Amino acid sequence: MGQDQSSVFDLAAVAAASNGGNNSPLLPPARFVGEAQKPSPMPYNKYVAYNKQVPFDNPDRTWPGKLLERAPRWCSVDLRDGNQALVNPMDAERKLRFWNLLVSMGFKEIEVGFPSASETDYDFIRMLIERELIPDDVTIVVLTQAREHLIRRTYECLKGAKRAVVHFYNSVSVLQREVVFRKDRAGIKQLAVDAAELCKELEGAAQGIDLYYEYSPESFTGTEPEYAVEVCNAVIDVIKPTPEHKMIINLPATVEMTSPNVFADEVEFVSNRLTDRDSIVLSLHPHNDCGMGVAAAELGILAGADRIEGCLLGNGERTGNVDLVTLALNMLTQGIDPQIDCSNVPEIRKTVEYCNQIKISERHPYAGSFVFTAFSGSHQDAIKKGLEARQVAAGRAGADLDSFVWLVPYLPIDPKDIGRTYEAIIRVNSQSGKGGMAYLLKTNHNLDLPKRLQVEFDKIVQAYADETKKEVKDEDIWRLFKDEYLPVEEGGATAAGAIVGDHHDDGLEQWGRLKLLKVSISSGEDGSDTVLKMRLLDRGVTPDAQPVERELSGIGNGPIAAFINALHNLGVTVSVMDYVEHTMTASTDAMAASYVECQIGEDPETQIIWGVGIDSSIITSSLKAIISAINRSQR
Amino acid sequence: MGQDQSSVFDLAAVAAASNGGNNSPLLPPARFVGEAQKPSPMPYNKYVAYNKQVPFDNPDRTWPGKLLERAPRWCSVDLRDGNQALVNPMDAERKLRFWNLLVSMGFKEIEVGFPSASETDYDFIRMLIERELIPDDVTIVVLTQAREHLIRRTYECLKGAKRAVVHFYNSVSVLQREVVFRKDRAGIKQLAVDAAELCKELEGAAQGIDLYYEYSPESFTGTEPEYAVEVCNAVIDVIKPTPEHKMIINLPATVEMTSPNVFADEVEFVSNRLTDRDSIVLSLHPHNDCGMGVAAAELGILAGADRIEGCLLGNGERTGNVDLVTLALNMLTQGIDPQIDCSNVPEIRKTVEYCNQIKISERHPYAGSFVFTAFSGSHQDAIKKGLEARQVAAGRAGADLDSFVWLVPYLPIDPKDIGRTYEAIIRVNSQSGKGGMAYLLKTNHNLDLPKRLQVEFDKIVQAYADETKKEVKDEDIWRLFKDEYLPVEEGGATAAGAIVGDHHDDGLEQWGRLKLLKVSISSGEDGSDTVLKMRLLDRGVTPDAQPVERELSGIGNGPIAAFINALHNLGVTVSVMDYVEHTMTASTDAMAASYVECQIGEDPETQIIWGVGIDSSIITSSLKAIISAINRSQR
Repeated sequence: MGQDQSSVFDLAAVAAASNGGNNSPLLPPARFVGEAQKPSPMPYNKYVAYNKQVPFDNPDRTWPGKLLERAPRWCSVDLRDGNQALVNPMDAERKLRFWNLLVSMGFKEIEVGFPSASETDYDFIRMLIERELIPDDVTIVVLTQAREHLIRRTYECLKGAKRAVVHFYNSVSVLQREVVFRKDRAGIKQLAVDAAELCKELEGAAQGIDLYYEYSPESFTGTEPEYAVEVCNAVIDVIKPTPEHKMIINLPATVEMTSPNVFADEVEFVSNRLTDRDSIVLSLHPHNDCGMGVAAAELGILAGADRIEGCLLGNGERTGNVDLVTLALNMLTQGIDPQIDCSNVPEIRKTVEYCNQIKISERHPYAGSFVFTAFSGSHQDAIKKGLEARQVAAGRAGADLDSFVWLVPYLPIDPKDIGRTYEAIIRVNSQSGKGGMAYLLKTNHNLDLPKRLQVEFDKIVQAYADETKKEVKDEDIWRLFKDEYLPVEEGGATAAGAIVGDHHDDGLEQWGRLKLLKVSISSGEDGSDTVLKMRLLDRGVTPDAQPVERELSGIGNGPIAAFINALHNLGVTVSVMDYVEHTMTASTDAMAASYVECQIGEDPETQIIWGVGIDSSIITSSLKAIISAINRSQR
Repeated sequence: MGQDQSSVFDLAAVAAASNGGNNSPLLPPARFVGEAQKPSPMPYNKYVAYNKQVPFDNPDRTWPGKLLERAPRWCSVDLRDGNQALVNPMDAERKLRFWNLLVSMGFKEIEVGFPSASETDYDFIRMLIERELIPDDVTIVVLTQAREHLIRRTYECLKGAKRAVVHFYNSVSVLQREVVFRKDRAGIKQLAVDAAELCKELEGAAQGIDLYYEYSPESFTGTEPEYAVEVCNAVIDVIKPTPEHKMIINLPATVEMTSPNVFADEVEFVSNRLTDRDSIVLSLHPHNDCGMGVAAAELGILAGADRIEGCLLGNGERTGNVDLVTLALNMLTQGIDPQIDCSNVPEIRKTVEYCNQIKISERHPYAGSFVFTAFSGSHQDAIKKGLEARQVAAGRAGADLDSFVWLVPYLPIDPKDIGRTYEAIIRVNSQSGKGGMAYLLKTNHNLDLPKRLQVEFDKIVQAYADETKKEVKDEDIWRLFKDEYLPVEEGGATAAGAIVGDHHDDGLEQWGRLKLLKVSISSGEDGSDTVLKMRLLDRGVTPDAQPVERELSGIGNGPIAAFINALHNLGVTVSVMDYVEHTMTASTDAMAASYVECQIGEDPETQIIWGVGIDSSIITSSLKAIISAINRSQR
């Protein structure tokens, strides 16, 4: 350090001392907060605002008005930055598995290691080269510090490669210049220039390798942007890239120190000032210390970046590198070809978790277990309606549903497009509404419950959920529904007419007075009234009654009216208030589901109650639904 | 929907059909990519760019040039949005535990539930009110849909509360208007106005409650901003807030659909157009579908938001709500009082994980297990130097180290400030450099190894790491170091003079020819040469030699010279190349550690080797270090 330079600590201490001025409450004390905000116990006077550490204004800010239009070039650094951040770095088997995943996803640039720092890396890279595992359209990148013996060792490692990027770096930040390298700006720049010159010199001995360069002013986020430009341009002057043979200038947010708008300002500033910009691929390497790495990458692209380095699902030092899967799928949801294949996110996740030996969070964007869940009733209801509306719109447009435009509330991406399923979308807990239950019955059991039946059944589900305090799974809902509305099947039959059961194995009490055994219907040729004959099993209304088979007949203007009239013989009075029926599948041997809302008995105070019937005959299913309602009313 | 309106699907399909134009490669085919980019298999023509879904320009964009200056008002929605997104929602015990955590952290606004949708929520809120668990300076918020029976039930739940915010919402997005509510703009706005009017009407029956209102145009991110303004202003016109009795307008990014700069544009647009802005607290409710929720909140604050709703550690529907702990600690690192107490992040994490029954990721900002780790050697080295430089700077400034300005490479926050420790910072694996090992020896064993000794010992650590392929833990490093440099202690003594050992229990071979038994030194009064006498155990240079005790003496201009000369009697030639000694603690009975770099033998080809000695006497420790080097050389 020059004698005349103050220490960064002295400057920072002065800046921090003025922090107090920042901490007046944002708002005048609100009446309902009761009192003015008081300082918290957090030591905010110990920290220095980013703009005081790296004072900077972007004089030519244009990025906020721009739009993402294309995917950047991607470079995976999983095998290097990701790997070095693992408690247990990958062995060769895991590295190769990860490499294969990256190649299969279509990555064309893969940073494969830091061969001069790790024998394991060195050996792995030698294996890739010697066993000819690198496809022709894939370029490996090898990292090295800008130090002579490490650069030499790096070139040794590349012998026999067809093509490679030598990626050299040195830290240029204000803080590291002082406390780590103890050099001034000129001295630090010289390290970079010396490294570039050594690289050019070693090219002679690297014949046969199609060599490219990448330079990173490491700790860029802690560096004065104009100084970063100065160092990068000094390196560019040595390497002399051309538009046909570019070099990569990579700006690492080695530590994320600021909000992404400030980072974008810095990127735009640098992008506008690099010598011979046409010969440069401007790359970013965001980390995620503030939880904003994805935003830093996206805003950085708006600001001029051409290329992004990161890791799958955000592995990497500390809080990780930027997550390339999230970035790519964000692009997809904007109608942009992500240029890497994320069509099987579960497989990506499985491999990444295996290789890194770290589990990702349930709430990880796109890949987490809970991403396609919706426990909220109103969300579930909206998703259900949205899926239906999309289906209708696709049908109207004569479009294939799978490729039809995706617009569904609360679901920014079609789970199918990334190898996931709808199954997990709707989950029901004690605090969900009826939408989830209705969706599950529709999706998994082809039952499209009328709205008022949803309300009725929802009370049963909620009571169960409140009692168990657990998620109500699809099988629970189905069991509750069958117990409530559908007869127990005897002898394993699935759609037979057994309407009376005793008790379920699972201990839920079964119910029912009547069971339909046989029914026949005849209408006169001239559209006269329908005559219905049926045989019923009647277990009576008292627990100890003996079952009696009865033959009944009735007449009416249709089968339901005739059926209801026949039931009068048993002293049962039924009025049908609402009636809905639908087929359960599209095939000709489809089952039909019928839902009837009935008033049982003549007393207007009598409960209005729903019944459900399922049968291959649309007539029998209706009659079963009425029996279901009667049996429920007498339960 | 009016007959004249096109379906959103039709418009979207047209927009998506033009996606192809977006997908020309970002860069001309780079030579080293081998070939032009080809389309990926991802169905990007199914998705519609956000700006085509919600065309919008912010005519008065000023936020990109602003700086964060103060913490916003915080509102935790953990007990509502967070809770509803759990597989197993919290029971009363968990809810109360979470409530207590929030209160202890200093949250003044806490959304406690959706009482009209969940009995559990209703009962919990009643308990808070009836058991008087709400501190005077804390305001509860209760959520309800903008529907009559739900609003009435909400007011019932509030009976007896001192103060509360009634938070009503309805979805106003383009998509939900069409597919869920089937109403046009006017109809949807009327739902909000009707709800506001009902609230005002119910105020009469809510006497004694200091009532405030919050309105959310739900799915704001899918809504035309000018329409959101229209609906909000219609609600404001009914509620009639004043600067002394404000209302909250909350803009939910119910689904994060875009990059945070676009969201900030929308927030600024709305902020500038709300009726009677002085009477409004503008709030944001970001989600994290694109992984940019934290950035959306920060940029939204720049754009005019006063208040942020979110959850601790980012729980919430799907990918979660914005993480309030990350936001608060981002503020802290900018020298801003976060206004909530995050000084014990491990405790926060523990409670949140217990209540939510979800583990957070190892890489979660600030709270994850790996946040304060650095496996990379160069990072470790820089951290070590940075911590030392900070200590020096604090000493120079006469400042207390704990509160002295924090500037350390790769560590944006002092772990101590959030209840974490340095212990986990440095971790060593097979691909780390020597900095980590050196840091651990210094921090945990008070040994400050000279640089060249670090290089020497690092080879031993790396060989071990390469062999085991695992993280090298502190105890491994210490064992390797003792085995290599320090004598096995006999009889459990910790600092005695036993310099020769046989084998370690752990099976690592021990070494050594010489063991120092006793030493005495005398100097003449006139500063003449030092005379040294010692007794040694000499096990000889062959494995089967018998140990022999020897008395030796030597003379020199200091004890080391005299010692070396005495060793000539055994035929051992030693030259000391470098010598470093330091005390291991500050106390008067401190142990000293000595490091000597020796050339053993007269042949210049002989290896240069380090020895280490530890003793309460600074002389004995030096002599032991020389013996350590000799023994190592003859191993």
